[in-house]
Amino acid sequence: MAQKPSIPKGTRDFNPTEMGRRNFIFDTIKNVYKVYGFEPIETPSMEQLSTLLGKYGEEGDKLLFRILNSGDFLRSVDTNDLNNKELTKLSSQMCEKGLRYDLTVPFARYVVQHRNEITFPFRRYQIQPVWRADKPQKGRYREFYQCDADVIGSDSQMNEAELVMIMDEIFSKLGIRTCIKLNNRKILSGMVSLINREDLLTEITIGIDKLDKIGIDQVQEELNQKGMTAQEFEIIKPILQLCGSNRDKIEVMRNLFANQPEGLKGVEELESVLNLLTGYELRNELEFDLSLARGLNYYTGCIFEVKALDVQIGSICGGGRYDNLTGVFGMEGVSGVGISFGADRIYDVLDNLNLFPESVTHTIKAMFVNFGDRESLYCLQAATKLRNKGIAVEVYPESAKMKKQMSYANAKQIPFVIFVGEEEINNNQFKVKDMENGDQNTHNFDSLYTILGA
Amino acid sequence: MAQKPSIPKGTRDFNPTEMGRRNFIFDTIKNVYKVYGFEPIETPSMEQLSTLLGKYGEEGDKLLFRILNSGDFLRSVDTNDLNNKELTKLSSQMCEKGLRYDLTVPFARYVVQHRNEITFPFRRYQIQPVWRADKPQKGRYREFYQCDADVIGSDSQMNEAELVMIMDEIFSKLGIRTCIKLNNRKILSGMVSLINREDLLTEITIGIDKLDKIGIDQVQEELNQKGMTAQEFEIIKPILQLCGSNRDKIEVMRNLFANQPEGLKGVEELESVLNLLTGYELRNELEFDLSLARGLNYYTGCIFEVKALDVQIGSICGGGRYDNLTGVFGMEGVSGVGISFGADRIYDVLDNLNLFPESVTHTIKAMFVNFGDRESLYCLQAATKLRNKGIAVEVYPESAKMKKQMSYANAKQIPFVIFVGEEEINNNQFKVKDMENGDQNTHNFDSLYTILGA
Repeated sequence: MAQKPSIPKGTRDFNPTEMGRRNFIFDTIKNVYKVYGFEPIETPSMEQLSTLLGKYGEEGDKLLFRILNSGDFLRSVDTNDLNNKELTKLSSQMCEKGLRYDLTVPFARYVVQHRNEITFPFRRYQIQPVWRADKPQKGRYREFYQCDADVIGSDSQMNEAELVMIMDEIFSKLGIRTCIKLNNRKILSGMVSLINREDLLTEITIGIDKLDKIGIDQVQEELNQKGMTAQEFEIIKPILQLCGSNRDKIEVMRNLFANQPEGLKGVEELESVLNLLTGYELRNELEFDLSLARGLNYYTGCIFEVKALDVQIGSICGGGRYDNLTGVFGMEGVSGVGISFGADRIYDVLDNLNLFPESVTHTIKAMFVNFGDRESLYCLQAATKLRNKGIAVEVYPESAKMKKQMSYANAKQIPFVIFVGEEEINNNQFKVKDMENGDQNTHNFDSLYTILGA
Repeated sequence: MAQKPSIPKGTRDFNPTEMGRRNFIFDTIKNVYKVYGFEPIETPSMEQLSTLLGKYGEEGDKLLFRILNSGDFLRSVDTNDLNNKELTKLSSQMCEKGLRYDLTVPFARYVVQHRNEITFPFRRYQIQPVWRADKPQKGRYREFYQCDADVIGSDSQMNEAELVMIMDEIFSKLGIRTCIKLNNRKILSGMVSLINREDLLTEITIGIDKLDKIGIDQVQEELNQKGMTAQEFEIIKPILQLCGSNRDKIEVMRNLFANQPEGLKGVEELESVLNLLTGYELRNELEFDLSLARGLNYYTGCIFEVKALDVQIGSICGGGRYDNLTGVFGMEGVSGVGISFGADRIYDVLDNLNLFPESVTHTIKAMFVNFGDRESLYCLQAATKLRNKGIAVEVYPESAKMKKQMSYANAKQIPFVIFVGEEEINNNQFKVKDMENGDQNTHNFDSLYTILGA
């Protein structure tokens, strides 16, 4: 009967220490979202496959986890498809539901489905797991959390400015030094218009996205393979290599785009965001980065990406504006803008830099040693009074050997251990041992509370 | 391209109001668990099917959601099974993983898998969704949350006593008046020993479990159908109908079990729990209820169930002691005890009795009306200062018509709307409208903060 238990590859158990640290990240993000007026929603883990399919490209469709229909899952199966092992067709015939792949498509579905109950502009945040049947590897999981905030139904750049503030505030609260990178898809568009090669937009943005990793020569080579002439590349190259302050870059681009309305619009949008940040004290770097493109093709305006300064790791937050997210569900012309925090990478950064506060994992303040029935009843009553004041304490549940009780307190790194014998009961006192320095002192309840409440 | 979007039946979207209310329940439970020294863990949504199968009975196996293997899901399929439509075999050949059905089996798997890292007794809580392919109906969903706390590795009745305190504290914090019912499986066992019909234990507990619903005559009839004589029934009947205080009942049972060691052990365990509650001020009723049996056969000691007093609804919390939860995974002889709160039913009770605090859904304190670039920059700066002090405010993102902005604030029930024109900017002031009574007053920042912080 005994099985050696394990969990599916690419998934994780989280122990109390990891949970304390993860909740520190989630709570920090959530609390900042809240003061900026974002409100939470949640959507089901399962969506209809019809909602998910075709939204993430061909590769994405393959990475969806599909849920076998309950009961007779063969009832709608086509025998020919079965004999020919038509996997794609069969999986659609046997599965109606899939696990959500991200929070963006379910959010778009939510907005369309509940459009009549929603007050627009709608500011929502959503922190939930997503699932992808990706090949598991270091830092890549099949179940992981996304932490999204979006404003939908407003095209004001104030939303972008507030999202920058949110990113700045969250990373400052987490203690991570970052560079928040900003760009605008219209600027990228304008750029390709300068060389009259709109057809190469996707290729150029992909190339630019890889600039950091493969260098300008390799990008040129790849673009050349896609059909860009050396002459065309020379025109866009200086733009990619632009430097100076954000305002300097804006001025150069504004001049370059004098006759290119879309690019100019992008520059103006970017400038609006910077103007709205006047007087806001940024604690992170903010850089208008023309090499920033981001992979997702649904972005149409401002795009964001955040890099940690002190750890070499991919982006830890990203987002942008999209003009037609809900169109695929029949609701056209609704503009939105959003960001998403990568909780797992943020965890790795904090872990790497040793930035997790002690307090997030060591929540239990004291343990009462158990010497027997009478003593433990006294301890339990004191514990109740402390718990009522919000202090987390334990009473060791049985009068085990002292050594066992002390090694429990040690293993759990409980800072104070409390001993109550007959003398303490008679005098209404508590003998308290500070586990860090070994000091022992006797206290009444009030001074015990003072010590533990500190 | 447009699809009319929907979600799978039995699943739910939660809007901001519902989320605020649900989080009020989860946070209340979590905070009490925490001060009692319970620490959080999380396990993956997916478990190996081998972990889940056979743990919930034949019916449970059918209710598991199975996840189609990625890639060629037909690779391990037996052609004969396919031709014969052997659904059970095929689903095991095409699916390795399933969605968790409860938190108890994953917890047992976790304890065995991580036994070398865990300090016992292990007090963990876990609040996560579970999935069941049950027929959806009012109050029954295919995705719902469980909120479990268990102590594993200690057989002291202090754990039971603390769990009673936790239930008492949580329902008191939620504002729900309840009766916490207590019984002990050993007492039930002892009872069947009195008539020498141990073979009927399961049938009797099932019958007792239904006593409330169908009445004593119907229970007798059903037991009679299972082979219990009228004479045997007469012996156990008075026990079921026992009344008086908890201490009175204990005395009667103690005498009845004078020569029945198991029953006596159950009575003593129950008495220990009551003794440990001496001096604890219960705010809910606590009743030793001999008709309480609970359906799950893995309970071996104390059992709990909580009923709301002011709403007719099933139990809203339950649990008990189990002596061998981890045995199925190869770790024998570990005793544990736990409780689980039914968040959905608690939601219905609170909703029914109108007990949700206003504050949990109306978190946004004020909205700044947007009159244009200059004004909104001023507002944004004031908003930042308020947000830094933890007050949730919004600046309407565009200078839309006043009517539109006001109806937004109305729809979201934002209590204060702030107007800033040229005069306010010049005087460093804010005109504040109290949306409840219509009063308008002008304030400087400090008095604005005082109003909103109240």
